[in-house]
Amino acid sequence: MRMRNKPWAETYLREHANIVDLDCVHKHQVTQWFDKEQPIHIEVGSGMGKYITSLAAKHPHINYIAIERDKNVMIRVLDKVRELNLTNIKLLCNDAVVLTDYFKPNEIDRIYLNFSDPWPKTRHAKRRLTNHRFLSIYKQILNQDGAIHFKTDNRGLYAYSLESMSQFGMYFTKINLHLHQEDDGENITTEYEHKFSEKGSRIYRMEAKFHHNFSEFVNQD
Amino acid sequence: MRMRNKPWAETYLREHANIVDLDCVHKHQVTQWFDKEQPIHIEVGSGMGKYITSLAAKHPHINYIAIERDKNVMIRVLDKVRELNLTNIKLLCNDAVVLTDYFKPNEIDRIYLNFSDPWPKTRHAKRRLTNHRFLSIYKQILNQDGAIHFKTDNRGLYAYSLESMSQFGMYFTKINLHLHQEDDGENITTEYEHKFSEKGSRIYRMEAKFHHNFSEFVNQD
Repeated sequence: MRMRNKPWAETYLREHANIVDLDCVHKHQVTQWFDKEQPIHIEVGSGMGKYITSLAAKHPHINYIAIERDKNVMIRVLDKVRELNLTNIKLLCNDAVVLTDYFKPNEIDRIYLNFSDPWPKTRHAKRRLTNHRFLSIYKQILNQDGAIHFKTDNRGLYAYSLESMSQFGMYFTKINLHLHQEDDGENITTEYEHKFSEKGSRIYRMEAKFHHNFSEFVNQD
Repeated sequence: MRMRNKPWAETYLREHANIVDLDCVHKHQVTQWFDKEQPIHIEVGSGMGKYITSLAAKHPHINYIAIERDKNVMIRVLDKVRELNLTNIKLLCNDAVVLTDYFKPNEIDRIYLNFSDPWPKTRHAKRRLTNHRFLSIYKQILNQDGAIHFKTDNRGLYAYSLESMSQFGMYFTKINLHLHQEDDGENITTEYEHKFSEKGSRIYRMEAKFHHNFSEFVNQD
């Protein structure tokens, strides 16, 4: 998500260094950064943060980290965290490629990817957040039973992700091909999702995990 | 697909024992049954056979086997095979559960599943043709690079199949979430598909293969 450049954005984010990490200073020390030691769920590409701040307000026993590289967007997440007085959410202003370096192996319990940029051109496929390059990062930081929760309104990105993830050795525990017709009331919408579903667009969703050993297959034969 | 019972169906099928196998007499001798030794593609649940007979007419260098357990439906496939004078297609009138016994291991190059019965009730999930019970059969008869090609208009069956197949250790090489908007002109429709797509229903499609060894995953890390 691109926003108009705000020269004061960095200053504002730096004033709240207890909430926002701009320079990876909490690298390998994420657990200590939070008030309480509890499971960690992250969102890669948080946009304006409606989704993850709603989750944080609803689930005080989970620690959340919003990851967004655009400072002009991240200020909107910070606004929400402050308004809601949330202590179980932190903000990492950086690119997803730093994640393996930032987190310890197996440290994360869940990764959310919501309405990621579809990068529709084939030559940009490597930038899609479900490309093998990124799956390899997620596999390293997620714990053994950790899951990726993915939502999009982009049919092409969803199809690509099903192919890419299954080819990488992931499996799907929950598939929704038309979320707003199948939802059990648990869905929290993002700003983007709200706008699109009002227009009648279909929202696709999945939950996915990594196969970790070959015996799983062998046992099924 | 259920059709009105036709008492003469069995007699008619038996009159064409060179084309139709009613009693698994060609068990483990499928290759010899055909005029030429060429790759074998099968369709499980052929219905009235428009799809597989069209394929057989279009691809003379492939041997096809239509599998359908209902004799009253199978007569319609036989009609088409005779009308088109096809020599590269045979008909097996039996249940899918006999397949491991009927074929030799790794004998099949491709399996088509088109508009299979969705069995929407959870207690009937075991009857769905993408249940682990059946995937285990397909894995045994497909060769190492063999693929399953699956089409349906049923959203629930498609979602179930993506979950079931990925959990079993399969991966997807091609996903179409709205086939008739994405088709490259290669699609051959079934009777059922033609009727439903005319009403504007969405057709889902996938191509899937089995992961055969763990090194595939290890190499990607």
